[in-house]
Amino acid sequence: MVLSFALDGTDGRARAGRFRLPHHEVLTPVFMPVGTQATVKAVSPRDLCDLGATVVLANTYHLYLRPGDERIARLGGLHAFMGWDGPILTDSGGFQVFSLAQRRTVDAGGVTFRSHVDGSEHRFTPERVIAIQENLGADIIVCLDECSAPDDYEYNKQALARTHAWAERCKMAHAGGRQALFGIVQGGVFPDLRKRSARFIVDLDFDGYAVGGLSVGETKGQMHRMLDVVDPVLPVDRPRYLMGVGPPPGLVECVARGIDMFDCVLPTRSARNGGVLTRARRYNIRNARYADDPAPLEVGCTCYACGTFSRAYIRHLNWANEILGHHLITVHNLHVMFSLLRDVRASILEGRFEAFREQFWRARAQAGQE
Amino acid sequence: MVLSFALDGTDGRARAGRFRLPHHEVLTPVFMPVGTQATVKAVSPRDLCDLGATVVLANTYHLYLRPGDERIARLGGLHAFMGWDGPILTDSGGFQVFSLAQRRTVDAGGVTFRSHVDGSEHRFTPERVIAIQENLGADIIVCLDECSAPDDYEYNKQALARTHAWAERCKMAHAGGRQALFGIVQGGVFPDLRKRSARFIVDLDFDGYAVGGLSVGETKGQMHRMLDVVDPVLPVDRPRYLMGVGPPPGLVECVARGIDMFDCVLPTRSARNGGVLTRARRYNIRNARYADDPAPLEVGCTCYACGTFSRAYIRHLNWANEILGHHLITVHNLHVMFSLLRDVRASILEGRFEAFREQFWRARAQAGQE
Repeated sequence: MVLSFALDGTDGRARAGRFRLPHHEVLTPVFMPVGTQATVKAVSPRDLCDLGATVVLANTYHLYLRPGDERIARLGGLHAFMGWDGPILTDSGGFQVFSLAQRRTVDAGGVTFRSHVDGSEHRFTPERVIAIQENLGADIIVCLDECSAPDDYEYNKQALARTHAWAERCKMAHAGGRQALFGIVQGGVFPDLRKRSARFIVDLDFDGYAVGGLSVGETKGQMHRMLDVVDPVLPVDRPRYLMGVGPPPGLVECVARGIDMFDCVLPTRSARNGGVLTRARRYNIRNARYADDPAPLEVGCTCYACGTFSRAYIRHLNWANEILGHHLITVHNLHVMFSLLRDVRASILEGRFEAFREQFWRARAQAGQE
Repeated sequence: MVLSFALDGTDGRARAGRFRLPHHEVLTPVFMPVGTQATVKAVSPRDLCDLGATVVLANTYHLYLRPGDERIARLGGLHAFMGWDGPILTDSGGFQVFSLAQRRTVDAGGVTFRSHVDGSEHRFTPERVIAIQENLGADIIVCLDECSAPDDYEYNKQALARTHAWAERCKMAHAGGRQALFGIVQGGVFPDLRKRSARFIVDLDFDGYAVGGLSVGETKGQMHRMLDVVDPVLPVDRPRYLMGVGPPPGLVECVARGIDMFDCVLPTRSARNGGVLTRARRYNIRNARYADDPAPLEVGCTCYACGTFSRAYIRHLNWANEILGHHLITVHNLHVMFSLLRDVRASILEGRFEAFREQFWRARAQAGQE
């Protein structure tokens, strides 16, 4: 295997592990910031280093369309292109084709769609998506999947058949690569489909397993139920990646259900509109109550933004539409995600994850958040 | 005096000096990046430190309107507010009132105008502008002046009378402050008005002298002629600040005419639209020719952007409307300004400024730029 994974400790179903790639080692659980267009919005690679980011996500669909995967290959691959030496994971583009692209038609062979940028027509097949991801050169790549509405059983059943066939073809197409390949478990909110999908994908023997199609409108209870269903099927010795999750409570609750890897646009996307994350709550800096507030974004936080600037200043920047405001909230929000999972990991290794989880929820209740 | 200035060396009319403030020493010639709304666009204070910025400019008009000078005073002043420990210079707001504000009416006592933000009515008088700048708490503040079209003799003559009366009142209002106060020489493109203005303002005995109302549409020849006229009138032992200049050639040519301090939005403003400065030329990264270009923004440049990223990547960021593109070009453009004046200073101290200047122009001619 290109990627080897080992558990350093467990506490209940929560796992503290590490995976090794040819040039890197990554401690889990890990939050991967999203660099859709080969940049994590509003921060530089050196900011990410300072924050302790380890793995960064980039988006196959976006980079294929612009600036083009072949161009990135000519320029030395994604690491050189975006100035990030650490591990990179590219998704398959499946989610974006099914959420962003226009006039898509799916058949057994793949999916044809029009670019959301310029309307041009394109086709993704399993083989093509692997080739694109090989051009990009990320350390971890994932199979093409079909993302369906989570609560339509018949559609999910049909989509699952395609997703499984595509996973087989991706595995074949990738044979011999230096990149780790993750399979994706789908199946909507249906326990039987999820279990069947997990078994099928695990039988194909991937470097790691992504759980896709969640965090797209289903309830938290449904999401947790799906994780409960796939947990016993997924092998202990491979990393598990929950795609698109999530807010701080999502990280804690899904670590509690055996997840090792996360990605989410929340910390970077909400920053643009003044949305500040803390462990205990979420608030908007644009609120008038912060106009004269000399406190940092989160009292006690050790990030650059909180060590240097007041809420009053960052609110001013936000109202004045200054980039620095977007940057500083992004720095803080990412710090919250990374430091939360560092603390989660320590609590697992010390056998006090449940106490940590209770304390986490108590602090949120005190702050008036669910 | 709050500010003391000494010359370390001269070469022709070019000056290498330093000024001391209670907590800082600044080497000249110096380029001051513009932080209109209490932030230099697209960079953080730590970026500015890394770049070797010494003095930062902030804007009285903008900060008075939003978030308000009294609010900034309550929050501990501009240094604490914007997280910048180094020297800050605030302009008087005069230029913005005469360029940005709506429905302004000038009388002998001051100027009444409507905010460009919300249309509310405000009045700046010399005393009010000093009080606002005392609230902001910058290290160097400047007198209220009237900025007129540069080529209307009669209007300039009248405006100059007001500017001079306002300078006297600013000087009176400021008596005893801990901030250095600069007077502003006006007079459009008219040698007699400029000379009269310089004499009048110098007689009032300020900590330093700004030359205003240039870089607003007159020719380079006219600007240089005005500097030639005021040069012999301005005292040798005070810093001279040319407001709103400028591009790299402007820095070199105006240092050659005795200027010590500069500010300009060019490096930060042009970055937003992909405008890249180098010593030899100016170009736009959006141009198709850079789509596959693995070279840095400026070959041989030692800034973070050039040390890490290619033109192809930064062009991609610009087309994809990513903040990091704006940030990286800003970092590079500011580095060009700072490093140019560091080299200019060294050449003055070593008595080879004229050779430096010739080489500077030769490189531009080779690059096909005027």
